[in-house]
Amino acid sequence: MVRVGILGATGYTAFEAIKLLLRHPHVEITAVTSRQEAGQSIAEIHHALTGRIDLTVEASDVPTIAAKTDLIFSCLPHGASAEQAVAYLKAGKRVVDFSADYRLNDIATFRRWYGDHHPDADRVGKVVYGLPELFRERIASADLVANPGCYPTSAILPLAPLLKQGLIDPRSIVVDSKSGVSGAGRTPKLNFHYPECNESFSAYGVGTHRHMPEIDQILERHASVAVETIFTPHLTPMDRGILSTIYAVPLRPLEQDEVLQRLREAYAGEPFVQVVDHLPATKDVAHTNLCHLTARVVRGRIVLISCIDNLIKGAAGAAVQNLNCMYGFPETTALAP
Amino acid sequence: MVRVGILGATGYTAFEAIKLLLRHPHVEITAVTSRQEAGQSIAEIHHALTGRIDLTVEASDVPTIAAKTDLIFSCLPHGASAEQAVAYLKAGKRVVDFSADYRLNDIATFRRWYGDHHPDADRVGKVVYGLPELFRERIASADLVANPGCYPTSAILPLAPLLKQGLIDPRSIVVDSKSGVSGAGRTPKLNFHYPECNESFSAYGVGTHRHMPEIDQILERHASVAVETIFTPHLTPMDRGILSTIYAVPLRPLEQDEVLQRLREAYAGEPFVQVVDHLPATKDVAHTNLCHLTARVVRGRIVLISCIDNLIKGAAGAAVQNLNCMYGFPETTALAP
Amino acid sequence: MVRVGILGATGYTAFEAIKLLLRHPHVEITAVTSRQEAGQSIAEIHHALTGRIDLTVEASDVPTIAAKTDLIFSCLPHGASAEQAVAYLKAGKRVVDFSADYRLNDIATFRRWYGDHHPDADRVGKVVYGLPELFRERIASADLVANPGCYPTSAILPLAPLLKQGLIDPRSIVVDSKSGVSGAGRTPKLNFHYPECNESFSAYGVGTHRHMPEIDQILERHASVAVETIFTPHLTPMDRGILSTIYAVPLRPLEQDEVLQRLREAYAGEPFVQVVDHLPATKDVAHTNLCHLTARVVRGRIVLISCIDNLIKGAAGAAVQNLNCMYGFPETTALAP
Amino acid sequence: MVRVGILGATGYTAFEAIKLLLRHPHVEITAVTSRQEAGQSIAEIHHALTGRIDLTVEASDVPTIAAKTDLIFSCLPHGASAEQAVAYLKAGKRVVDFSADYRLNDIATFRRWYGDHHPDADRVGKVVYGLPELFRERIASADLVANPGCYPTSAILPLAPLLKQGLIDPRSIVVDSKSGVSGAGRTPKLNFHYPECNESFSAYGVGTHRHMPEIDQILERHASVAVETIFTPHLTPMDRGILSTIYAVPLRPLEQDEVLQRLREAYAGEPFVQVVDHLPATKDVAHTNLCHLTARVVRGRIVLISCIDNLIKGAAGAAVQNLNCMYGFPETTALAP
Repeated sequence: MVRVGILGATGYTAFEAIKLLLRHPHVEITAVTSRQEAGQSIAEIHHALTGRIDLTVEASDVPTIAAKTDLIFSCLPHGASAEQAVAYLKAGKRVVDFSADYRLNDIATFRRWYGDHHPDADRVGKVVYGLPELFRERIASADLVANPGCYPTSAILPLAPLLKQGLIDPRSIVVDSKSGVSGAGRTPKLNFHYPECNESFSAYGVGTHRHMPEIDQILERHASVAVETIFTPHLTPMDRGILSTIYAVPLRPLEQDEVLQRLREAYAGEPFVQVVDHLPATKDVAHTNLCHLTARVVRGRIVLISCIDNLIKGAAGAAVQNLNCMYGFPETTALAP
Repeated sequence: MVRVGILGATGYTAFEAIKLLLRHPHVEITAVTSRQEAGQSIAEIHHALTGRIDLTVEASDVPTIAAKTDLIFSCLPHGASAEQAVAYLKAGKRVVDFSADYRLNDIATFRRWYGDHHPDADRVGKVVYGLPELFRERIASADLVANPGCYPTSAILPLAPLLKQGLIDPRSIVVDSKSGVSGAGRTPKLNFHYPECNESFSAYGVGTHRHMPEIDQILERHASVAVETIFTPHLTPMDRGILSTIYAVPLRPLEQDEVLQRLREAYAGEPFVQVVDHLPATKDVAHTNLCHLTARVVRGRIVLISCIDNLIKGAAGAAVQNLNCMYGFPETTALAP
Repeated sequence: MVRVGILGATGYTAFEAIKLLLRHPHVEITAVTSRQEAGQSIAEIHHALTGRIDLTVEASDVPTIAAKTDLIFSCLPHGASAEQAVAYLKAGKRVVDFSADYRLNDIATFRRWYGDHHPDADRVGKVVYGLPELFRERIASADLVANPGCYPTSAILPLAPLLKQGLIDPRSIVVDSKSGVSGAGRTPKLNFHYPECNESFSAYGVGTHRHMPEIDQILERHASVAVETIFTPHLTPMDRGILSTIYAVPLRPLEQDEVLQRLREAYAGEPFVQVVDHLPATKDVAHTNLCHLTARVVRGRIVLISCIDNLIKGAAGAAVQNLNCMYGFPETTALAP
Repeated sequence: MVRVGILGATGYTAFEAIKLLLRHPHVEITAVTSRQEAGQSIAEIHHALTGRIDLTVEASDVPTIAAKTDLIFSCLPHGASAEQAVAYLKAGKRVVDFSADYRLNDIATFRRWYGDHHPDADRVGKVVYGLPELFRERIASADLVANPGCYPTSAILPLAPLLKQGLIDPRSIVVDSKSGVSGAGRTPKLNFHYPECNESFSAYGVGTHRHMPEIDQILERHASVAVETIFTPHLTPMDRGILSTIYAVPLRPLEQDEVLQRLREAYAGEPFVQVVDHLPATKDVAHTNLCHLTARVVRGRIVLISCIDNLIKGAAGAAVQNLNCMYGFPETTALAP
């Protein structure tokens, strides 16, 4: 049994991780932490867990938690997450970090987008990006995995094969993404107050969202070309799901069928990526670790559409998939939809 | 022109009041106040007002505000509202109080449900309840009007005629109400965080909601019988609207047609109460000052169903209707749906 | 392996049943039928099944289907369902009938509420009602199980123990239920057209809904008292979930703690019924086979609140639970939330 | 008084037109027609109109309707609409056509996108496009006005000034639009069945939507350059509202402030177009005839964001604005938000 401790257990990604891990035959959740809610039962915080798990939330005391865990899922905010990751790595634990602390290629880019403070700057750029479809082998042997951002997953999966094969102009890409509100986390704020965002649709962070450099850098890492996307996230009045509509200029004339074929070949055998002919909807993949994606060619330009559940393939499901890679379990364990 | 000042202008009821009053040919909004947001343009707070009103939010300095207003809409929380009301009344202004401070029949009941503090206890029980359908005459000459609670309006309108005419047992009443989330106000809280209440339905305040004594006392005031309801509010994943399903035991066998007939007679000529044959939906009255209501008799018991928009007939529309009564304007001014 | 055939596979309950059974280690789905969609892949109808199941929809030819199945889930409408059930029973198959054809205690009541036609009138009243919490033993040995209605499950579970123990007046009961729209099925109709029911709340079938006699009769069957409820269903703008708020007059004064205690004892050891102290929300049980329920005492009357997922515990999950009973599998198989 | 007849009165755009016109001091609605619902009261179809209008739905008999109207709002589908328009024009009536029959620049394009049949092909290309912000003068004197499509309005308003001034490459434009479900009309279909589109987001008509040539042709008509957009509509789980995110390559380097300034100048004095600094949300303009729009420059490319209410500025409000132009009323009559 892999003993898993979950840091920052009161948020939505931690909640989904708990539910997934409760189904995992080779995992036991042995600790859940939160600074603010320590002392409460985890089921008092997430009522849906009533009768399903009997754990009390603890403060994250590293020796205590380390003594009863093999693997840490850190659902803490950036900065705080790396700080804890360092401590648990030092204690010999493996870590899947849900934050952005280790996702980027270089510390300079991190600092430009996230601020100067990074408690573990030296590791930045050396940590594997936890998208098994692209980086499976390195994940298997890693002690620390940078779990991908939700938007980046939805953008990278459709774009990676086309960029790698030199089919699209890496500076022509527009990623227009739409996310459910759970992506904003569990802390109440006016923007995510029900009567503000219900029955409303809006863009936010236009040109300033931190997932823009992540998309660029991971695509660069994978395809060895300089990528510069225009990324626009939007808030959609629904709980969960991301749909990304992606526009790119091909480097040579491409038929729709060829684009679909290239995507199909790239993801043949992948259990969680389905290249479909129809136009997918976020509901088709809700509550699953699946990515549905398709392609169209419109007036010579390529339009890619991908759907994921932002909390599953975009966060907790990806983490469990990484866990499976790290421990040699079949990748679909606990993730069969 | 009636010059209106709106206290607590950043909330939803104030926002609706502003939009209604902008349509009023005999009203000018001359002041909007908020302690926390003073200095901002009101359109920066409510983006929908961009280009429609040019006012800066002020702190509520009574002499300043009084000098430029005739009537105050107080959208402040209970306690704070009475405190301000007293000051503006003293300054010779008329006041429509959106809070619960002056709604109940006696200070003892107020204290049991709202706590000991009341800055103007002597007036409690002497202020007219601003439901023109029941208390029109007293409103016309009042300097202070207690604007009704949203749930009470939805419960009192269907029940009042039947109780007054002695048709139903005043101790048999169950009021099962369902409200959109805007009823909870604009302050972000976990319960009203989009991913918490979207796609979810729940009861709250069962047996403990402060609108329960309000329903009882106003029905008593109107019908001169002791009323004791069971009131259960529920949170519905929608912005606005209240539907109340009300159960009562008749004091003699009643046919459905007779119940409908009694309601029709009671509200004949009322511009905002429509007794309908079909089962109404909250959407039918959304964004209007209307109440749609109907009745059924099931296994000898009476089932009443009423719908209002909680922010309009349940708050801001009622206030404008009261304003119209107070100043002798046709009651539908600015409220034609 | 139990080979399961699903009749009427294009609807929502069948879709949920398929997803649950795909997780069942001892079940294989061997046939899916639909008159109208025969010939299509089931994944073309339910895109979420892409890559997860490879079955073509067939017309329901009894010999063909019977040859490859052990158990039939009939998700057909009433009337049509009994017709098929008879045929499959004759062919030696076991049947879980999702329709109302076999739920009631007598054919006269069936005819009053569903019309004269019943293709298998003799069996009505003799078939076990598939609520394992009440009728587990008879289900285990049954060849035909009447899968419960969604509303009745939400009403019967909280009421059954209190009626059985003679604690509440069986003629005082009001069941005020609120359901998500998926309960209306997958056939497009104006009432369930998105812009009609979104942002709207309404009652329907007041005093005329067919689940009213079902609630009465199953409670009578269980508690041996004549029950006459007032049942009001409401349409809630959400996908899934039922919350029932139930009012009853106690036959002797009861404290809230005692009511909760009685419920706890009644459902001790039940894997799918959780008696909780807090007020439950439908979201707490969404996508699970759980029922969360609680009780309050308000002004001497009892208020019970129960939540289920109408498509799981209210339909497909209950059917899988019944399957587990019928074949001796642990009841939670494929249903662990 | 302008006497208005509304053809196809059971749909959503007609319903909104009725509500707006009920507020219009110089308009009387004298006829409402529908083939299928003739004989019913219009308030039986739209319950929200109960007590607000007393009209019976008629079949559209041209002499009967013409005798009591001055102006026709045709809310019929394309093809059927032109057929009726011809008849009413012949009868000396003025017509605002909500359909696409007269919007395009040439009949060849119409036929490519809408099929061969057009009952009035000769007029195509000669009818003014009812966007007063661009074509006000011609509307004033027109007998027939082609009311704009909802998506085109949201795309044309931000793009028109920039194209006209030669600031952006007319072949670089991507219009990524998101609409509420009311845009799909009132006829129940599986795609718009509540449980299908609630909690889901999807693209549709990628590269094939009929509003794509409309956007191109009207921009060409206005700016005298050949425009070729990539247009992707999406279905958003909300009732109403369109947000379009528009990407374009500038023809020379442009600062964000300059783009905003150009838009501000273009729409200075326009009552319904607000150029805002913040990122607008569809809710800001819901239930109004307003368009909120803004601009950003990201990595040298221009991102325009516009919001309208698809049923008001995108349909019924535009029609009333056109009516006001045609009859010389102030354009904001009945449209003050």
